Amino acid sequence: MISETKKYLQFIFPFFNTKRTKEIFRVNPTVLPVREEATEVEIYVYDYNAEEVKEYELDKVEETFTCRDNNKISWINIDGLRKTDVENISKHFGVHLLLMEDILSIGQRPKMDEIDNVLFCLLNMLYFNDLNGAVESEQISIVLGKNFVISFQEDKSRDVFNQIRDKLRIANSKLRISGADYLCYAMIDLVVDHYYIVMEKLGERIEQLEEEIIRYGNSRSLARINNLRKELIVLKRNMAPVRDMVNGFLRSESDLLQDRTTKYFKDVYDHIVQANDLVENYRDMIMTLQDLYMNKVNLRLNEVMKVMAIVTCLLAPAAVIGGVFGMNFEVIPLTHQQDGFFIAVGLMFIIPLWMVWIFKKRGWF
Amino acid sequence: MISETKKYLQFIFPFFNTKRTKEIFRVNPTVLPVREEATEVEIYVYDYNAEEVKEYELDKVEETFTCRDNNKISWINIDGLRKTDVENISKHFGVHLLLMEDILSIGQRPKMDEIDNVLFCLLNMLYFNDLNGAVESEQISIVLGKNFVISFQEDKSRDVFNQIRDKLRIANSKLRISGADYLCYAMIDLVVDHYYIVMEKLGERIEQLEEEIIRYGNSRSLARINNLRKELIVLKRNMAPVRDMVNGFLRSESDLLQDRTTKYFKDVYDHIVQANDLVENYRDMIMTLQDLYMNKVNLRLNEVMKVMAIVTCLLAPAAVIGGVFGMNFEVIPLTHQQDGFFIAVGLMFIIPLWMVWIFKKRGWF
Amino acid sequence: MISETKKYLQFIFPFFNTKRTKEIFRVNPTVLPVREEATEVEIYVYDYNAEEVKEYELDKVEETFTCRDNNKISWINIDGLRKTDVENISKHFGVHLLLMEDILSIGQRPKMDEIDNVLFCLLNMLYFNDLNGAVESEQISIVLGKNFVISFQEDKSRDVFNQIRDKLRIANSKLRISGADYLCYAMIDLVVDHYYIVMEKLGERIEQLEEEIIRYGNSRSLARINNLRKELIVLKRNMAPVRDMVNGFLRSESDLLQDRTTKYFKDVYDHIVQANDLVENYRDMIMTLQDLYMNKVNLRLNEVMKVMAIVTCLLAPAAVIGGVFGMNFEVIPLTHQQDGFFIAVGLMFIIPLWMVWIFKKRGWF
Amino acid sequence: MISETKKYLQFIFPFFNTKRTKEIFRVNPTVLPVREEATEVEIYVYDYNAEEVKEYELDKVEETFTCRDNNKISWINIDGLRKTDVENISKHFGVHLLLMEDILSIGQRPKMDEIDNVLFCLLNMLYFNDLNGAVESEQISIVLGKNFVISFQEDKSRDVFNQIRDKLRIANSKLRISGADYLCYAMIDLVVDHYYIVMEKLGERIEQLEEEIIRYGNSRSLARINNLRKELIVLKRNMAPVRDMVNGFLRSESDLLQDRTTKYFKDVYDHIVQANDLVENYRDMIMTLQDLYMNKVNLRLNEVMKVMAIVTCLLAPAAVIGGVFGMNFEVIPLTHQQDGFFIAVGLMFIIPLWMVWIFKKRGWF
Amino acid sequence: MISETKKYLQFIFPFFNTKRTKEIFRVNPTVLPVREEATEVEIYVYDYNAEEVKEYELDKVEETFTCRDNNKISWINIDGLRKTDVENISKHFGVHLLLMEDILSIGQRPKMDEIDNVLFCLLNMLYFNDLNGAVESEQISIVLGKNFVISFQEDKSRDVFNQIRDKLRIANSKLRISGADYLCYAMIDLVVDHYYIVMEKLGERIEQLEEEIIRYGNSRSLARINNLRKELIVLKRNMAPVRDMVNGFLRSESDLLQDRTTKYFKDVYDHIVQANDLVENYRDMIMTLQDLYMNKVNLRLNEVMKVMAIVTCLLAPAAVIGGVFGMNFEVIPLTHQQDGFFIAVGLMFIIPLWMVWIFKKRGWF
Ligand SMILES: [Mg+2]
Ligand SMILES: [Mg+2]
Ligand SMILES: [Mg+2]
Ligand SMILES: [Mg+2]
Ligand SMILES: [Mg+2]
Ligand SMILES: [Mg+2]
Ligand SMILES: [Mg+2]
Ligand SMILES: [Mg+2]
Ligand SMILES: [Mg+2]
Ligand SMILES: [Mg+2]
Ligand SMILES: [Mg+2]
Ligand SMILES: [Mg+2]
Ligand SMILES: [Mg+2]
Ligand SMILES: [Mg+2]
Ligand SMILES: [Mg+2]
Ligand SMILES: [Mg+2]
Ligand SMILES: [Mg+2]
Ligand SMILES: [Mg+2]
Ligand SMILES: [Mg+2]
Ligand SMILES: [Mg+2]
Ligand SMILES: [Mg+2]
Ligand SMILES: [Mg+2]
Ligand SMILES: [Mg+2]
Ligand SMILES: [Mg+2]
Ligand SMILES: [Mg+2]
Ligand SMILES: [Mg+2]
Ligand SMILES: [Mg+2]
Ligand SMILES: [Mg+2]
Ligand SMILES: [Mg+2]
Ligand SMILES: [Mg+2]
Ligand SMILES: [Mg+2]
Repeated sequence: MISETKKYLQFIFPFFNTKRTKEIFRVNPTVLPVREEATEVEIYVYDYNAEEVKEYELDKVEETFTCRDNNKISWINIDGLRKTDVENISKHFGVHLLLMEDILSIGQRPKMDEIDNVLFCLLNMLYFNDLNGAVESEQISIVLGKNFVISFQEDKSRDVFNQIRDKLRIANSKLRISGADYLCYAMIDLVVDHYYIVMEKLGERIEQLEEEIIRYGNSRSLARINNLRKELIVLKRNMAPVRDMVNGFLRSESDLLQDRTTKYFKDVYDHIVQANDLVENYRDMIMTLQDLYMNKVNLRLNEVMKVMAIVTCLLAPAAVIGGVFGMNFEVIPLTHQQDGFFIAVGLMFIIPLWMVWIFKKRGWF
Repeated sequence: MISETKKYLQFIFPFFNTKRTKEIFRVNPTVLPVREEATEVEIYVYDYNAEEVKEYELDKVEETFTCRDNNKISWINIDGLRKTDVENISKHFGVHLLLMEDILSIGQRPKMDEIDNVLFCLLNMLYFNDLNGAVESEQISIVLGKNFVISFQEDKSRDVFNQIRDKLRIANSKLRISGADYLCYAMIDLVVDHYYIVMEKLGERIEQLEEEIIRYGNSRSLARINNLRKELIVLKRNMAPVRDMVNGFLRSESDLLQDRTTKYFKDVYDHIVQANDLVENYRDMIMTLQDLYMNKVNLRLNEVMKVMAIVTCLLAPAAVIGGVFGMNFEVIPLTHQQDGFFIAVGLMFIIPLWMVWIFKKRGWF
Repeated sequence: MISETKKYLQFIFPFFNTKRTKEIFRVNPTVLPVREEATEVEIYVYDYNAEEVKEYELDKVEETFTCRDNNKISWINIDGLRKTDVENISKHFGVHLLLMEDILSIGQRPKMDEIDNVLFCLLNMLYFNDLNGAVESEQISIVLGKNFVISFQEDKSRDVFNQIRDKLRIANSKLRISGADYLCYAMIDLVVDHYYIVMEKLGERIEQLEEEIIRYGNSRSLARINNLRKELIVLKRNMAPVRDMVNGFLRSESDLLQDRTTKYFKDVYDHIVQANDLVENYRDMIMTLQDLYMNKVNLRLNEVMKVMAIVTCLLAPAAVIGGVFGMNFEVIPLTHQQDGFFIAVGLMFIIPLWMVWIFKKRGWF
Repeated sequence: MISETKKYLQFIFPFFNTKRTKEIFRVNPTVLPVREEATEVEIYVYDYNAEEVKEYELDKVEETFTCRDNNKISWINIDGLRKTDVENISKHFGVHLLLMEDILSIGQRPKMDEIDNVLFCLLNMLYFNDLNGAVESEQISIVLGKNFVISFQEDKSRDVFNQIRDKLRIANSKLRISGADYLCYAMIDLVVDHYYIVMEKLGERIEQLEEEIIRYGNSRSLARINNLRKELIVLKRNMAPVRDMVNGFLRSESDLLQDRTTKYFKDVYDHIVQANDLVENYRDMIMTLQDLYMNKVNLRLNEVMKVMAIVTCLLAPAAVIGGVFGMNFEVIPLTHQQDGFFIAVGLMFIIPLWMVWIFKKRGWF
Repeated sequence: MISETKKYLQFIFPFFNTKRTKEIFRVNPTVLPVREEATEVEIYVYDYNAEEVKEYELDKVEETFTCRDNNKISWINIDGLRKTDVENISKHFGVHLLLMEDILSIGQRPKMDEIDNVLFCLLNMLYFNDLNGAVESEQISIVLGKNFVISFQEDKSRDVFNQIRDKLRIANSKLRISGADYLCYAMIDLVVDHYYIVMEKLGERIEQLEEEIIRYGNSRSLARINNLRKELIVLKRNMAPVRDMVNGFLRSESDLLQDRTTKYFKDVYDHIVQANDLVENYRDMIMTLQDLYMNKVNLRLNEVMKVMAIVTCLLAPAAVIGGVFGMNFEVIPLTHQQDGFFIAVGLMFIIPLWMVWIFKKRGWF
């Protein structure tokens, strides 16, 4: 049982994910960005109105400058963040220095701001990594101006906006006949919708964990509870402030938001409120699992103790009888009888059997 | 005691309800509805005023279209959701696309909305399944327009509105002489009233569980605590937002709500507030039970340990005396005496008896 | 120790009060009243102004109808609820149907309402049952109209208003020279004042329980903690909403409330706020007791384990020495010596004594 | 170990302070004052303006009546409460009956009120009793009128106002050149300042307790945690409402408060807010200590169990070998050899030593 | 195992930091400053506008008096607090006595105030002491007047403003072309930014602790959890009120704050809100670690018990068989057989081996 301890350590170690703790707590949105400059930047522009849509891929941010004053609605999506790019485009489109800082920051809290005729919001797209069960985030900054929307993403390999791209290609879709504010809404809506996908996957993990705890309840379960609590911290941290952010759009009196778009933001608001409720449910459930785990461990301890108590009690008669007849007295009753030995041994077994029978009857095991 | 562990697993497994966890956490109101299209749809219409009431069953939603502008109050109740039905009726009665999405959604958070001269609310009717002790929900969407109320239910086999149907048939009942807003109130009132029925049944389960824990306190109790905590999550999730929903009616300044109906909504508000208080009490009670269970398990462990301690102590003299006289020395006092053996054995029993007597006196057991 | 378990169950069972759980959780204010109609109803009327007071006992509620428009202030107190009585009097004095429903309801949440020129409030008088330590409640509904106050009580055997009756008989007492709103205040004030009496008695139980836990800390204490937690739920449920209720009077702009009465409602408000604070203190204290209990149980387990560890250690030398000299070797040192036996037995006792001495010195027990 | 339990009870009993629980929970501000009438009452008056100050000790409250309308600022301090005194002075200075009730009440929640051109506040001075570690309170009621301040204290032996007395004697001190409102501020300020003294002393007890738990962690520590939790309840109960009270002065629009005094009340407000924060920190710390204590107890249990496991394991070889060679077979190997005994005994000691060596190597102890 | 306890105490004692508790809880901002007068005071002045900047080191505070009315923006930074200095400079620059008290106070809660045409704020710079893992604080008071900013620091050896000094030397930097309010913002911004540095370092400690608990989970871990909980109290206490403080700047309508500076304070507000969120995450994480630690300790206890149960069970057959054949009967089967002994001993080993085999198969260890 000694090597047990060793083996046990090697066994549980991979389940505990301390590296994840490091990732979660190394948050600092205030320092000058230490983000590695993106090596490649992809710039996509959609220029559209109800009648027509044009889709470009551009090489330099400077090529997007015409979008500001063309009479179409322009969606400029920039995948990959390079300091000079963000500075140039911000200067041209009238994005304040502080917002530029936010776009380039890492681990910023979701927020909404209105500075100098521009509506700005920043939030995180969440993805679920099926391999390690981690909630991953990608920061997205959205700038809504008159007839244009600029979005800055960190990672060009993925986002949650394909549905928008599809709808932009459909003439007279709601998206095509509405203004830039509706495009902005549509983006936030899809980000929030994707939170549910992530939560669903996390929910599956919770289910699996519950089953595992009921079945085994070993230290691997403990590691998993630990890991899930960390992922919930990530989830909550990213989702809770989005509520205030969307509320910012609802209360805003900016001319950039048309009255008829309000109901759409109200719809997103419904969903983000519910999503936050759901996170609380998850938290409750994980605490339930933690309690369940502790109770299982206690129960098992109780059983081991019961076994010991029973064995100790069953041994008692044998020990006493063996002791009694093992004494070196000259005169010991039964010792000279032919069947004395068998009587003694018989008692050694009959008394415990009788005790077992009583224990059973009294519901002791 | 080994097969014990096996048996134990098979024994407790049915009590833990991991499938329920799955059901509870698979919530996603944002994706396009994956709801199976209802195979049959039942459409009932009540056309009434103070003087007369007409009750129809219709085959197609299109047949309800005349209800919008007839000069009677119409209650159109649609049991079973089919996408095209909802779209057609929504278009005709002026229900906004976003509300239509809500009607077709699954697991939506209870909400209240005013869009385009229509008051909309969505909440869940709750039922208690006596077989498995689960709280079941059926989503209901209510559209209140000028002189009409449309309600959309998921399941045609049940609802909580029979009391309304009865009252509609009584001439000059409060319901018959009031407007469509009063009908809308009456529906919400009945839904909330039914929450109390469900809570009462859940309360009974809590009582039974308390008794079970006090009597046995085994791992089946643990499973039951676990299950009840899940049902409470369902209950709370469905009831908490209804408070805000009803408050929405109280604060609304819509022309669709007459001033004299406000006091009725205030009455529902009283009840939903109290219902939410009560859920908190249930939660407190379940945590009390959880503590009780843990304390029982600890207490039992203590008793087992006490038994072991006592047996160990009682065996001690026999072990020592047996050891002493079992040694193979040539000169051992008493061994050659006639009654040496009986003295030794006597001591083996008298010392423990004396110890028992002292233990008893000192209140040890 | 087996029959122990049996005896133990019979022993603790009366202390756990599962019936109480049933009573607490069977709350449903929404269904049509299932209250048994009162067999006897007592109606007392006090008609007073500064100069004179008249006190009647009436047989039928219809006899109170003159009180509405006589130019005195009338307190109509109805002990015992009968549906037709409540309906008749409500109709005559202009009490809305919804309020009538509240008066007849059971387990209603304390509330305050203004409908149709009548101020209405409903709350519970609390009593402490010394026999079983339960907090009992009696619902009281107070209707404040122009120059009249009607109060509906459930139980004619008791209330908390004797002080008011005394003061009504004193000419020119504050009560006699003030309006109906002051009478209404005086009633609420006495109800709230009585909450402190109830809390005081509950506080005594908490003190007793604390002493019991410190002294014995057995499963009876556990049952008592359990019971007190339930009573606190009752207390909190009845008192928390009264704060909002009194606040309703403070914010009301009804003509039925004179400006100079506001300070009196402010005084009640002070007390109900403090009472709610105090309930939180009680809750804290009971959680402290629960922790104390658990710690006591753990401590006792530790002591039992220590005893076992000590006995095990003390037996070890005897077991080893007895084993050593009990072996059947031909050549065993000391065995042929005259005092070999005594040396061995001496060691059996000296080694443990030496161990005890060391244990003591090191503070082990 | 039996007498142990007895001794143990006698040992811990003095540390648990159940009488304190009684004191804490016997709060009832609503009943007619049961306060013993003060046997002696001390009345001090300070009549001052910028130029001169006069200090009197008076015998009867009636002698203070001239203070109302003299053109100086008067501080009337009454030590010891007698019903008739309070009634007389209240009548003369225009203090409403309800406030008079508050002055005479016991255990009242700190509050601030404006009735009939008088500003009233009531709070508790706190003292720390070094002997028993209890937080003691003395109720003080302050009445601020035009050019006078009346303060009512319960106990003439102590208060926290000496600093004010000193400053009043200094001509042209801020206090002397300011109005009655500044005097009122100065009193509240000193009461709040003294809260920090009390908290500091309680903080010292927490430190000592922490050290004690780390060193010993016995049931005396448990009693101390228990006692500190009670004192914190007292502290919090007295301090939390003072925040609202001071805020009442900040929001008040009474003419009795000059604009330039507002910043002084803001200063007190800063301190009472911080004091309440600090109480929360104390609470956190005590819960940390409770957790620490429980962990220590668990750890010690673990150690005792480890010792037992080790002794059990070490005895095992001796028991088996002694059993083997103690059997009465005719043919037993080694028994006829000269050194058979020594081989057997050697094994009895070598095997455990070897086990110890392995245990050590594997870090088991 | 006795000396164990001793060694253990010496071993863990250095890890528990009770002195730290003393430091944390000795907070009293209300008493007259007991701060040791600074022996040396360093006074630095930066006089700047867009065109030029002058940097002086002054010997006396009186030399700064010209800064009030020169037409440049002046930053007067005073390192080291001496009562007379603070009084003199406060008098000259119009800082109210109450603010002067705050500047000289110790352990003051972060606050913001507007008195007499001066904006005042006080907060703490935090540093992380890598040696002992403690969060250290240095109080800084900032006075913003027309064209001047005065900052008072406690400790001349360090602050967080070097970045400001660098930027002041760059002509036409944002800082140089903006007003005194921007300088004030820049200082608060840097203080808040540094909170993230401190939190990052604390986060690293949490990571390390998690790894340690997973690996060892001994009483050193317990001490570390204890210490981290204390540091979090410090962190939270210093950071939580800064949110209100910054909000004070956002809501202020002082002429000293230009409209265009508001967005910068909004930026700081974002960061302090997020920092407070993060502290909550840290708290969650430490509670997770505490749970993890307790579970590890329980798990280890379980393992020790399992070992004991197994050894007890394995010894049972040997004890019984040894007892059986050790009895002194004349007729004992097998005893006269040649291989009787070997059969008995064989059984002694075969039965336990068979038990082990069964245990293994059933997954018992
Ligand atoms: Mg920054
Ligand atoms: Mg990211
Ligand atoms: Mg991307
Ligand atoms: Mg959505
Ligand atoms: Mg959508
Ligand atoms: Mg929706
Ligand atoms: Mg435990
Ligand atoms: Mg949607
Ligand atoms: Mg559903
Ligand atoms: Mg359904
Ligand atoms: Mg249905
Ligand atoms: Mg209802
Ligand atoms: Mg009602
Ligand atoms: Mg109803
Ligand atoms: Mg009742
Ligand atoms: Mg009654
Ligand atoms: Mg009262
Ligand atoms: Mg009273
Ligand atoms: Mg009062
Ligand atoms: Mg009173
Ligand atoms: Mg007092
Ligand atoms: Mg005094
Ligand atoms: Mg102060
Ligand atoms: Mg002061
Ligand atoms: Mg201050
Ligand atoms: Mg002070
Ligand atoms: Mg400092
Ligand atoms: Mg410094
Ligand atoms: Mg910053
Ligand atoms: Mg910055
Ligand atoms: Mg920013």
